[in-house]
Amino acid sequence: MIAAAPAPETVAALTGALDLFGVAVFAASGALEAARKRMDLFGFALMACVTGVGGGTLRDLLLGAPVAWVAAPATLGVCVGVAAIAFVAAPWTGRWTGGGRRALLWFDAVGLAFAATASAGKAFALGAGPSIAVAMGVVGATFGGVIRDVLGGETPAVMSREVYVTAALAGALAYAALRGAGETPAGVAGFAVAFLVRAAGLHWSLSLPRFEGGGEAA
Amino acid sequence: MIAAAPAPETVAALTGALDLFGVAVFAASGALEAARKRMDLFGFALMACVTGVGGGTLRDLLLGAPVAWVAAPATLGVCVGVAAIAFVAAPWTGRWTGGGRRALLWFDAVGLAFAATASAGKAFALGAGPSIAVAMGVVGATFGGVIRDVLGGETPAVMSREVYVTAALAGALAYAALRGAGETPAGVAGFAVAFLVRAAGLHWSLSLPRFEGGGEAA
Amino acid sequence: MIAAAPAPETVAALTGALDLFGVAVFAASGALEAARKRMDLFGFALMACVTGVGGGTLRDLLLGAPVAWVAAPATLGVCVGVAAIAFVAAPWTGRWTGGGRRALLWFDAVGLAFAATASAGKAFALGAGPSIAVAMGVVGATFGGVIRDVLGGETPAVMSREVYVTAALAGALAYAALRGAGETPAGVAGFAVAFLVRAAGLHWSLSLPRFEGGGEAA
Repeated sequence: MIAAAPAPETVAALTGALDLFGVAVFAASGALEAARKRMDLFGFALMACVTGVGGGTLRDLLLGAPVAWVAAPATLGVCVGVAAIAFVAAPWTGRWTGGGRRALLWFDAVGLAFAATASAGKAFALGAGPSIAVAMGVVGATFGGVIRDVLGGETPAVMSREVYVTAALAGALAYAALRGAGETPAGVAGFAVAFLVRAAGLHWSLSLPRFEGGGEAA
Repeated sequence: MIAAAPAPETVAALTGALDLFGVAVFAASGALEAARKRMDLFGFALMACVTGVGGGTLRDLLLGAPVAWVAAPATLGVCVGVAAIAFVAAPWTGRWTGGGRRALLWFDAVGLAFAATASAGKAFALGAGPSIAVAMGVVGATFGGVIRDVLGGETPAVMSREVYVTAALAGALAYAALRGAGETPAGVAGFAVAFLVRAAGLHWSLSLPRFEGGGEAA
Repeated sequence: MIAAAPAPETVAALTGALDLFGVAVFAASGALEAARKRMDLFGFALMACVTGVGGGTLRDLLLGAPVAWVAAPATLGVCVGVAAIAFVAAPWTGRWTGGGRRALLWFDAVGLAFAATASAGKAFALGAGPSIAVAMGVVGATFGGVIRDVLGGETPAVMSREVYVTAALAGALAYAALRGAGETPAGVAGFAVAFLVRAAGLHWSLSLPRFEGGGEAA
């Protein structure tokens, strides 16, 4: 009995909770960018919403599926709530650096790992093949951050930051490779691989080699 | 007879005219950005089109509806016409500051008020609930300007400018609240609320409090 | 027999090859931007994919059609392959200036000419009228580059560069005008017109007059 698979409703509840958690931490990173740019409360809300749901929105549009948060309005509520808390709390967090910022990066790794795995799973469920499913894992996990950085006037950080895209790609690949063994083990494996790769990147400040030929100063 | 409701065809004609007027003033603000960046005629046209129809396009994609201007090509014609007029007339308008720019802001308030109300109405008509309809009101009224600013290399102004998003939000909320009383009174109320909030913002240069903790210089 | 029309399978093979060639040269221009910004390998891949398929993706979303590359995953494979080659080869190409960059511009003109004509053709095939079809020709040929420049933090070059949008517009117009004469002659004419206009722009460094009134320094 101890080794029995978890009940389907347990998995569904966990999946739903991780989904909202991922949206919330992505939203928090959007609110952080709004704080850096000294936006007003609605700027915080807009940046939180766009970052929280941006990756999943692009994934759904590319797959021709209904956009998930449009059918689940609580998602935007979570983003707006995060923005409001961030707007009020921001002055006390020591410029969002130090401990608070560090904690956010680790929460963000959880969101990244979940989004990569769940996005690949959604693509498979809609009939996509493995290469498109993996691409959707990367899109779902990273494009919220890309849009956040574009709106904030920055070159997208995911393109050079500590193995961020690498983590999404590794998790989606692990999920796709193990999908034959069942949805739950594949999902757990994808989540774990993405999280561990990103955790290694954060812990040791890993970066992939960047092109160092004659470019512009970054 | 005096208090009779307007005939449906009158409402439809007024709605269609306001829609094109809103597209035209948004397009003009895109052409103004093109002038500031010294683009060529096609840059003017592209900026006018993207700003004129950008908000409605994103709204329609999110709702899974056919994109409105693709079925009504005259919309793009209005944008291109505005761009051509702006390209020719720009040198005479005193750097688009002073009176011309001021007038454009007031016209833009009309476009904003209409887009917020009509976008919320379209979402309701497609079966969305109130919170998504209000979100679509904000998206339809503001994202043309967001895309304009991103293409022009600016941090989106709507995130900090005189109660712009606030006006769209207030109008969409008023429309949603009064929808039970009928489409026409709700639409008039939503339009009036959005316009008056924005007008107050323009007249008294209102801004919401911005986050003033340790951010970057804006 | 000499003047016979080419067999349909020949046309289809040529069309498919030109399509992938166009994606590859657009992808190369994305990888070039990644090199200028000194991104890592995944930055190269992401910029190559977004630039390679961005214009066609927006075109398909606007038309309400399934996104082409989602049904043809080899497309992304071409982009990733181009990115990998560019990442390895970049240090040897003399800062991507000189001959390599010049060659890329000419290849890009082929991609532009094909994308403008094929995008207009796809819009017609989906039931659009001539003005929307021409607009889709411009979108499909230019928006990959627009997204590339936005992600790279640049003001989109197509808005001021040597008759780039003009070439796409001219090709799509020629295709639309000649479509009554048959798909193949119209396609060849559209391709030729777009390529020749762009070639003239490259050869003589043509630019449309830019707005020179009181704007900002570009």
